[in-house]
Amino acid sequence: MKPQKPLIFLTNDDGYNAKGLNALIDALRPMARMMVVAPETAQSGMSHAITMGSPLFLRNVRQEEDLEIYACSGTPVDSVKMAFDSLLTEMPVLALSGINHGSNSAVSVIYSGTMGAAMECGLYNIPSIGFSLLDHRAEADFTGAVYYALRIIDRILRQEEIDLPMCLNVNIPNIPVDQIRGIRVCRQNKGYWREEFERRQDPRGRDYYWLTGVFLNQEEHAEDTDECALRNGYVSIVPMQIDLTNYQQLDRMERWQW
Amino acid sequence: MKPQKPLIFLTNDDGYNAKGLNALIDALRPMARMMVVAPETAQSGMSHAITMGSPLFLRNVRQEEDLEIYACSGTPVDSVKMAFDSLLTEMPVLALSGINHGSNSAVSVIYSGTMGAAMECGLYNIPSIGFSLLDHRAEADFTGAVYYALRIIDRILRQEEIDLPMCLNVNIPNIPVDQIRGIRVCRQNKGYWREEFERRQDPRGRDYYWLTGVFLNQEEHAEDTDECALRNGYVSIVPMQIDLTNYQQLDRMERWQW
Repeated sequence: MKPQKPLIFLTNDDGYNAKGLNALIDALRPMARMMVVAPETAQSGMSHAITMGSPLFLRNVRQEEDLEIYACSGTPVDSVKMAFDSLLTEMPVLALSGINHGSNSAVSVIYSGTMGAAMECGLYNIPSIGFSLLDHRAEADFTGAVYYALRIIDRILRQEEIDLPMCLNVNIPNIPVDQIRGIRVCRQNKGYWREEFERRQDPRGRDYYWLTGVFLNQEEHAEDTDECALRNGYVSIVPMQIDLTNYQQLDRMERWQW
Repeated sequence: MKPQKPLIFLTNDDGYNAKGLNALIDALRPMARMMVVAPETAQSGMSHAITMGSPLFLRNVRQEEDLEIYACSGTPVDSVKMAFDSLLTEMPVLALSGINHGSNSAVSVIYSGTMGAAMECGLYNIPSIGFSLLDHRAEADFTGAVYYALRIIDRILRQEEIDLPMCLNVNIPNIPVDQIRGIRVCRQNKGYWREEFERRQDPRGRDYYWLTGVFLNQEEHAEDTDECALRNGYVSIVPMQIDLTNYQQLDRMERWQW
């Protein structure tokens, strides 16, 4: 009997029919069985949101040998929960989120639906990876992103001992694949987004605002960050915390008089 | 000239007219000027979500000496961004989120709109605190929660040196104030939510699912966690990370052959 191909779970935040997700599915077909549960609609910026006030719908959009695709009416994290707590009858060896259309480097990781879903997968005690290409356009070219995604997936699957939970934030520069200089494991760049709210008036005279942010880099010259790696043409990998405790501050604050 | 009272920013995820937020506003009136920007509607479980696909509306619901309240059509984090990047002309000394109706201890912190907003405030380089009472009902009794919130706020304002960014996750047990045994600085309890999707059929015969979770505690016997503190009648304070890099894993993975 032929050994079965490994089962991989996939999701994203751009919706089940986004180009980035389907590029990854196509590339993985020869080597994996896949279960895909992804949002019905675009859910960018949904972070770790879950749907509490309304019910969820699930729609089977593809059912083939070694490939099942479902569209979920909720958020990326809802999709992960439905997959792991309701659909999957076998634990996947790996969970993937993306490939996202647009960067999730630095502090963007906390707003990202792609990374919210990846972190949620990490809570099911399997390695999880979120992939993002630095091009937000629907028609972005995923050639380089897919090439490096496969290399990183292969590397994780070959690793004998993995410290779980593991959730990796992988960003890929938007340059031709032969110009990408390699892979760097790095830390999250410090910085934040500031919004320039664009104010308009609706036909009834009510003001409304469009959120249009700019990223302010607090450490332009640091050389060990994801921003720096990407700027220099490298793929960045940031391993993420799932325990959000700030242990340094905890040590200090325990000694305070309360 | 009388010295001006300090300016405090407030938000929440239960909506601008929730009882928990208004209990905190009432208690702070004698000692602070306040700017409040909170969601128009309930936004529980919205985590760090931002609104990208539609514009935001802002409504002034109260304008008094030392107290301005705005309702924002978006998420808790949208409310924070509108406040800091569009409304505030003076930097507050402190940002508060809550008091939330319901617990945000352990891993709930990553799904919580209350804590998403608190973390966002932390990115504006002022101390921020999210408060949550372990009672999700609209009519919950906030007496004990307000008493301890004021003690903690006072303690932070009196502290001479604060390591910024600082974002505290404070949970208050739902017992009478005189039975609360004190305050404990602790770490986030390891564990996760597993969903039991309740399946129903709509009048047209379509299946739909309600997300109904149970918390699985991975360390029932640990004594330094927020869950343990709360179970024993203490108020829990967990200082939170804003940098999500997992530095231990980073050290190990840097040595991998890529």
